[in-house]
Amino acid sequence: MTDETHPADAAFAWLDAHADDRRRAGLSRQLRPRRADSDLLDLASNDYLGLARDKRVSGAAAAATLRWGAGSTGSRLVTGSTELHSELEFELARFCGAQAALVFSSGFAANLGAVTALSGKNCAIVTDAYIHASLIDGCRLSRADVAVVAHSDAAAAGRALATRRAERGLMVTDSVFSVDGDLAPLTELAEVCRANKAALIADDAHGFGVLGDGGRGAVHAAGLSSAPDVVTTLTLSKSLGAQGGAVVGPRKVIRHLVENARSFIFDTGLAPGSAAAALTALTVLKEEPERAGRALTVAVTLAERLREAGLQVSEPTAAVVSVRAPSPEAAVKWADDCRAAGVWVGCFRPPSVPDQVSRLRLTARADLTAADIDRAVSVITEHAPPRA
Amino acid sequence: MTDETHPADAAFAWLDAHADDRRRAGLSRQLRPRRADSDLLDLASNDYLGLARDKRVSGAAAAATLRWGAGSTGSRLVTGSTELHSELEFELARFCGAQAALVFSSGFAANLGAVTALSGKNCAIVTDAYIHASLIDGCRLSRADVAVVAHSDAAAAGRALATRRAERGLMVTDSVFSVDGDLAPLTELAEVCRANKAALIADDAHGFGVLGDGGRGAVHAAGLSSAPDVVTTLTLSKSLGAQGGAVVGPRKVIRHLVENARSFIFDTGLAPGSAAAALTALTVLKEEPERAGRALTVAVTLAERLREAGLQVSEPTAAVVSVRAPSPEAAVKWADDCRAAGVWVGCFRPPSVPDQVSRLRLTARADLTAADIDRAVSVITEHAPPRA
Ligand SMILES: Cc1ncc(COP(=O)(O)O)c(C=O)c1O
Ligand SMILES: Cc1ncc(COP(=O)(O)O)c(C=O)c1O
Repeated sequence: MTDETHPADAAFAWLDAHADDRRRAGLSRQLRPRRADSDLLDLASNDYLGLARDKRVSGAAAAATLRWGAGSTGSRLVTGSTELHSELEFELARFCGAQAALVFSSGFAANLGAVTALSGKNCAIVTDAYIHASLIDGCRLSRADVAVVAHSDAAAAGRALATRRAERGLMVTDSVFSVDGDLAPLTELAEVCRANKAALIADDAHGFGVLGDGGRGAVHAAGLSSAPDVVTTLTLSKSLGAQGGAVVGPRKVIRHLVENARSFIFDTGLAPGSAAAALTALTVLKEEPERAGRALTVAVTLAERLREAGLQVSEPTAAVVSVRAPSPEAAVKWADDCRAAGVWVGCFRPPSVPDQVSRLRLTARADLTAADIDRAVSVITEHAPPRA
Repeated sequence: MTDETHPADAAFAWLDAHADDRRRAGLSRQLRPRRADSDLLDLASNDYLGLARDKRVSGAAAAATLRWGAGSTGSRLVTGSTELHSELEFELARFCGAQAALVFSSGFAANLGAVTALSGKNCAIVTDAYIHASLIDGCRLSRADVAVVAHSDAAAAGRALATRRAERGLMVTDSVFSVDGDLAPLTELAEVCRANKAALIADDAHGFGVLGDGGRGAVHAAGLSSAPDVVTTLTLSKSLGAQGGAVVGPRKVIRHLVENARSFIFDTGLAPGSAAAALTALTVLKEEPERAGRALTVAVTLAERLREAGLQVSEPTAAVVSVRAPSPEAAVKWADDCRAAGVWVGCFRPPSVPDQVSRLRLTARADLTAADIDRAVSVITEHAPPRA
């Protein structure tokens, strides 16, 4: 901030240098709005089951919007709870095999709410090093002691819980990690939590709808969804193709969140249309449970084919396939070239990747055809940077 | 935690005592889902302009959902930006008289994003004591030095900014405070910010759509919406009857948020239907600017009539009317009695009220009729507790 700056411009003068730094590091980001009639092949969204544009889902959302209004009009504790919200909570809990559920306006808000309301000053939180940003922010807000342990290391988590000073303990992890799609050691984590009288929060954003019996998720698959010391967080915006989030778990946990989760209490309830979309998507998933397995099969096929072509590809345990790039710039160019050739892939760079490795992030969808996969593999390999 | 507890039940044993404490303090909360055909007179929602169920707004949301899908399918930086989002951002900025705007999935997320991305370790944040929970959480997440000054005290804010140790300064306030609906001294705050080379973030959640020229909001009314050191946050869930939030301000601030706001980057984009609803509500507001003034007139009338009836009522400067209750229990009973008599009012108790005073919170709507007002006044006064 120099003395010559006009006073009105002084406050945000620092933003210029900040933007220059990012540009030089190859980390600039840009919004690229899509058209409704885009004919890009989508391997970038999190619409794992292909339900966001399913006519049953969008039709139910449209009908609910006309019936209930465009917005929920208030906090869930005031006017923002409709019968649709309750029904969705009932069905989510039942589907997951848990006692109760609570719907938030986003998965981000669900994570903030669950982590903060279930921890606090007398609590030690132990987290996996690769958890999602919303869980990290929940930890930062929590006023708890926070210890970060190595990625997917249940023994380290156990040691951190055993040596905590705080009375209460809470382990926080993704069930399926968002960047590489790898699975957390949920069974082992639940064991070390139980042994140390600690609770486990597992964010099943990328497991729900894809893993487990009929897409009941990774927590259900691990036999933990009805455990009295396990809480699952979900998003309605990925497999269910809608918007919103949820916490699923023991009834007394859900009651506690209603009374204490700030991101629930001080936030407008989810729009009725989004609640209806999630509810209908859940019905479709129950009627067509093969969608879950199909997303996984597509991911495995994609990964194999790309690996055969010589790329460095993750081992998919859910619908996410991650392909390493040699640098942020190379990742951006690669993704841009694919897009120009009609294939839309995600491009993840620092600081959005915990290991600081830039990569393409491909998502499998249950409705990708064999021809789609062929096309994706050929475009991605054709445009691969030299060192990838 | 006693030794007799079963290990699986140990983790959440503390929730029982916590729930008992709240119950004893009269602070229990319960979800009461509403029916689509509820015939309660609504003085509890934040649907200030009566647009949530306006057929133009819900019709546009339904049509957009069918056209674009139920969800946005990804982060705004990946697949979650549609042309609808861009159009809404363009129109919000133009309406407010600012350079640019950015849409978030909620007003809560917009506040988290703006406060965290515009502060940081080298920043001192000064906040009004009565700011909204989402701004408080933004401050807690910010890693900045945070100083809280007395409610609506611009001189105290100026002193705190002037004596800060950090290089950068940021003042954070609601423009219209959510509990009592009183107006912040925006002009004075902007002056002390400018004098101290600090930025101002004003949350116009309750001013936008109600105050200023045609509902352009409190920041516009104060002549600050195009200032290079002022940032406005909005919600799309109150006057616009939809869901979502936005930040409006200088172009370089918006660019910075795209690259740095975690609640923007790591969150699924707003559902297309909600974006369309907000866009259409904005069009309606432009075509029918008298809706804004009408909400305020209704609030003033309501307040006068209740005061004449002997109640302790706030002086409304926006659409919120607050009526004091002698205790949390009395507030709950009062609100319940009104509801049983067909009038739905908000009931705010600690810890959701910064001054720890329980009250009824009534919201005026542009579409309340004289008969509605008569009915509301008679029911509220009839059921007033003895000491109110
Ligand atoms: C693991 C994980 N948790 C939570 C979220 C947040 O969910 P939402 O986008 O619904 O806010 C995401 C992604 O957005 C995620 O990948
Ligand atoms: C002052 C204020 N800011 C922000 C918010 C949050 O907005 P949203 O409900 O859209 O998340 C609210 C209320 O919900 C509010 O009253």
